[in-house]
Amino acid sequence: MYIAVVGSGDPDEKNENIAYELGTLIAKRGATLICGGLGGVMDAVAKGVADENGTSIGILPGSSREGSSAYLSTALSTGLGEARNTVIVRSADVVIAVGGEHGTLSEIAFALKTRKPVIGINTWQLSKEGHEDMSIARAKDAKEAIELAVSAVTE
Amino acid sequence: MYIAVVGSGDPDEKNENIAYELGTLIAKRGATLICGGLGGVMDAVAKGVADENGTSIGILPGSSREGSSAYLSTALSTGLGEARNTVIVRSADVVIAVGGEHGTLSEIAFALKTRKPVIGINTWQLSKEGHEDMSIARAKDAKEAIELAVSAVTE
Amino acid sequence: MYIAVVGSGDPDEKNENIAYELGTLIAKRGATLICGGLGGVMDAVAKGVADENGTSIGILPGSSREGSSAYLSTALSTGLGEARNTVIVRSADVVIAVGGEHGTLSEIAFALKTRKPVIGINTWQLSKEGHEDMSIARAKDAKEAIELAVSAVTE
Amino acid sequence: MYIAVVGSGDPDEKNENIAYELGTLIAKRGATLICGGLGGVMDAVAKGVADENGTSIGILPGSSREGSSAYLSTALSTGLGEARNTVIVRSADVVIAVGGEHGTLSEIAFALKTRKPVIGINTWQLSKEGHEDMSIARAKDAKEAIELAVSAVTE
Repeated sequence: MYIAVVGSGDPDEKNENIAYELGTLIAKRGATLICGGLGGVMDAVAKGVADENGTSIGILPGSSREGSSAYLSTALSTGLGEARNTVIVRSADVVIAVGGEHGTLSEIAFALKTRKPVIGINTWQLSKEGHEDMSIARAKDAKEAIELAVSAVTE
Repeated sequence: MYIAVVGSGDPDEKNENIAYELGTLIAKRGATLICGGLGGVMDAVAKGVADENGTSIGILPGSSREGSSAYLSTALSTGLGEARNTVIVRSADVVIAVGGEHGTLSEIAFALKTRKPVIGINTWQLSKEGHEDMSIARAKDAKEAIELAVSAVTE
Repeated sequence: MYIAVVGSGDPDEKNENIAYELGTLIAKRGATLICGGLGGVMDAVAKGVADENGTSIGILPGSSREGSSAYLSTALSTGLGEARNTVIVRSADVVIAVGGEHGTLSEIAFALKTRKPVIGINTWQLSKEGHEDMSIARAKDAKEAIELAVSAVTE
Repeated sequence: MYIAVVGSGDPDEKNENIAYELGTLIAKRGATLICGGLGGVMDAVAKGVADENGTSIGILPGSSREGSSAYLSTALSTGLGEARNTVIVRSADVVIAVGGEHGTLSEIAFALKTRKPVIGINTWQLSKEGHEDMSIARAKDAKEAIELAVSAVTE
């Protein structure tokens, strides 16, 4: 199972801690982490995976591995710029969003567009003309997020 | 000036009419339309441009021009799948979103991520942890959307 | 018909002149030029198209239109880096290569891989284990190249 | 160190055996294999890596992992089509080409364009207007190819 964790490069402490815990849980499950490979949530989740000897793949926007998280098992430089967000989503079976800014929103949107399950913690809420879009499954913490993610993929 | 119009491939009549009117106004301004090149809002806005003898570029997800709008000046098959959404946004100076589903949301998100102005008509509203994101400038109709778009680019 | 012309950003005078003439012939045929949108062969062929009031599309590697040829009808910034070469080829019905370096070789290879006809003038010759690959149709000048290109697409 | 091995999806037995041996040598070196993740050379090199308990990443053209080699440590579905070839090259420090058809040629060309070292075994030879391009370092077998690859990256 491939689980993408997406979120801000500059998160608050709460979301950074959640990302770290998600990483530990993903590794304990034997799943592979897919992330954007840079700092903040990406670095924290990769550290969580590393601390449990799991496997993490960072899919980078630039043409070199410079600036990538030191905790990744594998860092892939795509040279695609922000279009690499679509590769993160395509590679994953499920996407967990932790907080996040507009880049994270693009990953959520791509996942929903391509009918991948999305689990959200402290992240974007979407509505259109007054109707809320309930496509993102909400989790209150890392543990619940992983439960929801695994259920969504295996059912 | 390059103006992207993004929206659903299967819009309601109200948004289809708005898209058509946007096309006529873009052509009258002498701007170039960038769109996704398929049906619905994409086809309607291209028809609007064609009816005023303007220029429209469709950036298609597939590997051939099959299924593209017949009203486009130029239809480019990228073979990139949904990653072509990032090319639509990168090519434009400003993005106007009319209604739309999750694909449109990905284009809005990419535009905001890359600091392009986004004008919205009947489209997504974004909030995070109870705070609304006011990054999308709201327009009530096609005319106001074009005014806002042109102001955003030229100021 | 969409004709891609690919070649060096820094050609010799002979190939630059051929590129210019190709542009004039493409415009006279009423075909649309697809090119990489930068200098050298790309600029010369766009100038040829412009001088005959034709249509040319430049597909740029960067995230802005800065540095693009001033002769293009439309300049699209993809933000994809060199992956934009695949978009140039996917968008075209036929590819004409004039001289060129390794970037041009990648475009020839993508075209052959995706079974698009390739016409070559003063460009790469390919062989493998002593056997020449005859997939590139050779032309001695711009006029012959256009004849071969049009035949390849229309037959 | 990240070593890409590229080649045909339908190689002859000689090149398939070379690919397998390359995989074993890459794993013994502790390097990470990057490949296209499908059959033929891609499958054989991944099997070689797996037999020595190494790490291999397959970068797939499609939107799902269907059809990918069963020997990969990680299979990433990009949804980018043939543009994924640019990601294979961007992710690698050095590219080894074994035989190969036009897709392999596109990978060689992208590598040379982006100034990555390319080692060739039984693969394309390039010339232009009668002058051979010597950019590809030639190896007679898997062992020599790995020596050349490691030297090219570490020097």
